[in-house]
Amino acid sequence: MPLIVVDVMPKAEILDPQGKAVTRALTRLGHEAVGQVRIGKRFELTVDGEVTDELLGQIRTVAEDVLANTVIEDVVGIHVEEQA
Amino acid sequence: MPLIVVDVMPKAEILDPQGKAVTRALTRLGHEAVGQVRIGKRFELTVDGEVTDELLGQIRTVAEDVLANTVIEDVVGIHVEEQA
Repeated sequence: MPLIVVDVMPKAEILDPQGKAVTRALTRLGHEAVGQVRIGKRFELTVDGEVTDELLGQIRTVAEDVLANTVIEDVVGIHVEEQA
Repeated sequence: MPLIVVDVMPKAEILDPQGKAVTRALTRLGHEAVGQVRIGKRFELTVDGEVTDELLGQIRTVAEDVLANTVIEDVVGIHVEEQA
C-alpha cells in the first residue's frame, strides 16, 4: 500500500521554543555547525489502491483542513513513498 | 545556508493514539481512501557552510542521540534541502 507523507512546519514568524531548546542543547554538546533547529510534524498516511492526482488533491485538502493548523503552521510538502 | 531534514517516526509496535484519532476523524469526514495515519516529527537543521559526509555523519549521531528517543522512535530519514 502506498504511503503519502505530509510535512507540516510552524510558520517562520511563530516562536519555536522546543526548537530553540534543542539548538541550545546541540551547541552545549559541541555541535557548532548546527545553526538553528525547527521542529514540525511528519504525517504518514497509508492509502488504499493507486495514488491518483485526484487522491493527491484530496490529501492536499485534508492536510490544509485537518492535519495543519494553518493559522500557525504551513504544509511544506506532500510526497508519495512506496512502502518497503 | 543548507537545510538538513531529519525525519523521526514512532516505532511500528508503539501505540500512536494521536494517529488513531486523526484516522477516525478522516473516516468521519468521508476520506475512506486513507487507511491509517501515523504522526512523527520533522526536524529542520540549518547548518553553516557546506554539507560534507563528515557533517552528515555528525548529524546522524545527533539524530540518534538527541533528536530521537530510540527506545520508542526510529530515525527514518536524513536528507539535505537547499533553502529557497
